[in-house]
Amino acid sequence: MDDWIKDGPEIYRRSFATIRAEADLSRFPEDVSRVVVRMIHACGMTDLPQDVGFHPDVARAGSAALRDGAPILCDANMVASGVTRKRLPRDNDVRCLLADPRTPVLAAEQGTTRSAAAVDLWVDDLAGAVVAVGNAPTALFRLLELIDLGAPRPAAIIGIPVGFIGAAESKQALAEHPAGIPYLVVHGRRGGSAMTAAALNALASEQE
Amino acid sequence: MDDWIKDGPEIYRRSFATIRAEADLSRFPEDVSRVVVRMIHACGMTDLPQDVGFHPDVARAGSAALRDGAPILCDANMVASGVTRKRLPRDNDVRCLLADPRTPVLAAEQGTTRSAAAVDLWVDDLAGAVVAVGNAPTALFRLLELIDLGAPRPAAIIGIPVGFIGAAESKQALAEHPAGIPYLVVHGRRGGSAMTAAALNALASEQE
Repeated sequence: MDDWIKDGPEIYRRSFATIRAEADLSRFPEDVSRVVVRMIHACGMTDLPQDVGFHPDVARAGSAALRDGAPILCDANMVASGVTRKRLPRDNDVRCLLADPRTPVLAAEQGTTRSAAAVDLWVDDLAGAVVAVGNAPTALFRLLELIDLGAPRPAAIIGIPVGFIGAAESKQALAEHPAGIPYLVVHGRRGGSAMTAAALNALASEQE
Repeated sequence: MDDWIKDGPEIYRRSFATIRAEADLSRFPEDVSRVVVRMIHACGMTDLPQDVGFHPDVARAGSAALRDGAPILCDANMVASGVTRKRLPRDNDVRCLLADPRTPVLAAEQGTTRSAAAVDLWVDDLAGAVVAVGNAPTALFRLLELIDLGAPRPAAIIGIPVGFIGAAESKQALAEHPAGIPYLVVHGRRGGSAMTAAALNALASEQE
């Protein structure tokens, strides 16, 4: 234990080198590959790429939106908390409306989860936004439903909810959605706020 | 997509039932098993139990400390953000000192990471606390070093840092530490703030 590495930048360098040596990133364009590397860094699993699905424009569109000052709309406070503010190009607003007083009222009215109800409160800011769903499948299902109903198009959707009930299905629905909005998913049950925040942090800045 | 489940409690019930049907929890005592179930819920991986290491008193000691009002000392804001405040028995203080103004000063002085330096600021509150390291191996290494130097004993250490450089080694060091403090780890590279917060949420309340 005496020889643990204390040099933060060196830990980052060695971590990213290990990831690039072990993970098969061959099917990703360079800009998406950078995002996947950070996602692997956040979860410790080099087999993650096999489950990553993406629209080829997702990194370009997400990064451009952030450079234009787009807000980041998150389904969970942990996702918002994981966004490294100093990487953001325009001090972008990072928003999670789970604790908004309107959310439980809407959830009760609609007979749905608070996570899904909070998405209804995004609608006025959805045009050109970067959406980050890292926890609740119901938030992603509701977002797609609102888009079907005519809600504005976000610039990109990072859809990486985790879990056993609805997670895989919600990510499949995003990947197959006819609106063709640039997306990034981790198919299956894996996902979560750390991977999702890591993807946002990769889109926000090219710095490793 | 039309038939997604909107009933939050029903999603929880089905999720936990799936986990208990698929995961091999046979080697855990009942109180640790409840913690592992919530950790699986947070990451979507039913093979997690194979990597879980624990001291047999960890759930009992961690829960008792929280009922006594112990603070929760976290290495990362995402961990703190993931603790469900309404589950805490005594409105326990949930603390992360990464953003404390003393942290970068200490880190520069000691030539270490901010995550490790922030642990030095825990010392006055460490006696009987519940420690939750969900991100940085350097925080866990530093904690063990301080305990070797005579720092007070926490009631329990949830040590689940993630990643490629030092994560596995730091968790091994915790599991083998001669002080014998009750601990919970996920051996290897896997880990992270979501699993760590889930473990805390399980210790905080028996409610599923």
